[in-house]
Amino acid sequence: MQAEFLQAESASGSPSLAAALRQRRQRLATLISVPVVLWSGQSPSRNFPANSYPFRASSHFLYFAGLNLPKAAIALQGSHLTLFWDEPTPAEVLWHGPGPTRSQLAEQIGADDARPLADLEQYCAGAATIAVQDSTTRQQQEKLLGRSLVAPKLAQEPDRALVGAIAQVRLCHDDLALAEMRRAAQVTRRAHAAGRAATATATTEAEVRAAMEQVILAADMTPAYSSIVTVHGEVLHNCHYGHRLEPGDLLLADVGAETPLGWAADMTRTWPVSGQFSPTQCDIYDIVQAAHDRCIEAIAPGVEYREIHLLAARVLAEGLVSLGILCGAPEELVEQDAHALFFPHGVGHLLGLDVHDMEDLGDLAGYEPGRTRSDRFGLCYLRLDRPLRPGMVVTVEPGFYQIPALLQDPEKRDRYSALVNWDRLAGFADVRGIRIEDDVLVTATGVEVLTE
Amino acid sequence: MQAEFLQAESASGSPSLAAALRQRRQRLATLISVPVVLWSGQSPSRNFPANSYPFRASSHFLYFAGLNLPKAAIALQGSHLTLFWDEPTPAEVLWHGPGPTRSQLAEQIGADDARPLADLEQYCAGAATIAVQDSTTRQQQEKLLGRSLVAPKLAQEPDRALVGAIAQVRLCHDDLALAEMRRAAQVTRRAHAAGRAATATATTEAEVRAAMEQVILAADMTPAYSSIVTVHGEVLHNCHYGHRLEPGDLLLADVGAETPLGWAADMTRTWPVSGQFSPTQCDIYDIVQAAHDRCIEAIAPGVEYREIHLLAARVLAEGLVSLGILCGAPEELVEQDAHALFFPHGVGHLLGLDVHDMEDLGDLAGYEPGRTRSDRFGLCYLRLDRPLRPGMVVTVEPGFYQIPALLQDPEKRDRYSALVNWDRLAGFADVRGIRIEDDVLVTATGVEVLTE
Repeated sequence: MQAEFLQAESASGSPSLAAALRQRRQRLATLISVPVVLWSGQSPSRNFPANSYPFRASSHFLYFAGLNLPKAAIALQGSHLTLFWDEPTPAEVLWHGPGPTRSQLAEQIGADDARPLADLEQYCAGAATIAVQDSTTRQQQEKLLGRSLVAPKLAQEPDRALVGAIAQVRLCHDDLALAEMRRAAQVTRRAHAAGRAATATATTEAEVRAAMEQVILAADMTPAYSSIVTVHGEVLHNCHYGHRLEPGDLLLADVGAETPLGWAADMTRTWPVSGQFSPTQCDIYDIVQAAHDRCIEAIAPGVEYREIHLLAARVLAEGLVSLGILCGAPEELVEQDAHALFFPHGVGHLLGLDVHDMEDLGDLAGYEPGRTRSDRFGLCYLRLDRPLRPGMVVTVEPGFYQIPALLQDPEKRDRYSALVNWDRLAGFADVRGIRIEDDVLVTATGVEVLTE
Repeated sequence: MQAEFLQAESASGSPSLAAALRQRRQRLATLISVPVVLWSGQSPSRNFPANSYPFRASSHFLYFAGLNLPKAAIALQGSHLTLFWDEPTPAEVLWHGPGPTRSQLAEQIGADDARPLADLEQYCAGAATIAVQDSTTRQQQEKLLGRSLVAPKLAQEPDRALVGAIAQVRLCHDDLALAEMRRAAQVTRRAHAAGRAATATATTEAEVRAAMEQVILAADMTPAYSSIVTVHGEVLHNCHYGHRLEPGDLLLADVGAETPLGWAADMTRTWPVSGQFSPTQCDIYDIVQAAHDRCIEAIAPGVEYREIHLLAARVLAEGLVSLGILCGAPEELVEQDAHALFFPHGVGHLLGLDVHDMEDLGDLAGYEPGRTRSDRFGLCYLRLDRPLRPGMVVTVEPGFYQIPALLQDPEKRDRYSALVNWDRLAGFADVRGIRIEDDVLVTATGVEVLTE
């Protein structure tokens, strides 16, 4: 494992890891005055203790430490960094091989000091932290800090101040992060190309998924999230791959890579299994594509992301009106959330170390201070409500779905009875789910689409 | 997810799931008199709560319930089975799609009753259980049972009786299990063939790993454990794939598939990157192959697995003597654990739902009652010490490794100074690690090698 850290740095072609990490710490230090301790966590067990899931360090640790190193912690006092980690025992070296020393790791990340974990306790007095995902480490956090921890989005002081500061620091990406995200996006594009090519001969969803993830694994990356590769795109979080591919099906693939330092891509394409859209599939695809393109054109510094979401909704509503599926003025249809019958999720989210970046912080990251989630059916799933700023990476992922749980819901059918032409909609039964998703970097002058 | 359970059953071509599960319950009922409650567990979070690792139910739940169903439990009263599970809420159906009802699942597995989770508490009085791996569920177990739980290998009554009974029931496999394990082995063989083929053009370990796991994913299975695909086979638990392949390297691939119902294969092959062994690699490979073959020939009902381990050690010692690397009589070299300098692990382990089957039960599963681990360097890592019985599946995986942590250890060099010809050994520097591993079913008359 250790060997890989060193390779990841040199292979990335990115700016010096140590210098970039130092800048991150300096930015944090301007926003928070208490000491900070962040833990990396450890792998949870799968079916028995020695058969663990692949380790993935806490994103907050990764951001400031740049090491996918289990059972480690860092203390930040101002911009002064101490790395805490125990070198492997001789028995561990026997099974896991030799690796860098604590000092070598510390040097790699520009740490000012490096100590065994036993020394960590004396750095914990009054320190702020963020709870990691694995409960074993969380118990260690609580023991050393002498207090109980809650989910970051519910944190009280001093942790709440840290949550706010980290959200601010991680919101706009630096060159190191962008270099990593471009690498993830490049591999992800190749995975999608492989999936599309494999569809010509594949007989099941599983075969297409395998062709896509092969590209990611071959690049020594991992899927950033459970891939969605399905002919039932209307099941929004569908992580099963058992269906056979039929000639009239659309295949929706939402697959993204993550680099060894943890930076993610998130990309969706939808293509016809046969290679040819039916006329009805083509009609709807064009509408989703138009929504996608119009949203990306509209992205610029200062634009409210919520307006991007509403633009997607309006373009979808316009298109569905033009096809005779919705009836009325597009603006009014959106105000009544009629678009959400077919597009119930938000147009996207922050992207970074997490595929929903900083989602563990809840809306403290995604929502501008003072803003809260809407109750509206057409807005309540919007994960990001901030003005866009240079350095932010967001996804743009409009979609069209025929979800029985929504379209067959008596309350919804009643509420939208005058706005939907159900007979007309029945003619589009071969369009179960379409989504087109790209990763968009906001630049000073406009955008860079990482996944294109 | 639910759709997949139903498919897994029908696709397996195995005996009726419900009937086989009923037989398992009946066997358990003859061995334990207290009621039993088993939980399936839930997925741990990766970097944020909604981005979880793929779900894998507790093996004990899977064995008796046959469903990879999160947040579920079963109560066994004699052979009477009650399934506890809450059907998805409308919001969950919106995101995760429709699935079978509780009654449908209950019928599929031959449950006698099916109830919501809220009813589980009344089944917990005096019940025995086994702690699952994820701590969220473990807390629920403790709350409902009103007592704290420890690792199964440390369990006290009534759980200890259950551990013993389950170890006895799961030790020898029924037809359903064997049908699943043959499917896993078949896909695993194809994965190894793909890895070997990919090596011709691959430039990194990661590319070979990707080619192997693609086969597993395309079959809608998952890797049963973190694949080892490395040119540094001497790092025994090496789960990193960053090395470039060089013409003189040996590539060691330890990769196995797991079926949707959780049954595992575990297979290792070692091949030359160039397609051609060097003479020194060929010499050592032949010795490991001989140990592998002789062990499989020796396996039969009634044979002690420990003797299989010692046979592997003896054949390796004989070979190393013939090459002039070890000096002395092979039997005496094994008695002095000199083989363990190059073969420090056990010759194999139980295989079933877990790749180290029932390892969560510790040596209560792997060791015949009354036996304990040896302190000997050459035996202390032996995971299985029982007489072999028909229906047991064991791995046979002798190996040869040049592990610096062992061979450079001053204490070891001193202890074995007269038994190792270090100069001669230096001539074999291009043999860092070789392992050959197959999965062997003990039959009434001999063996069936599942992975061959």
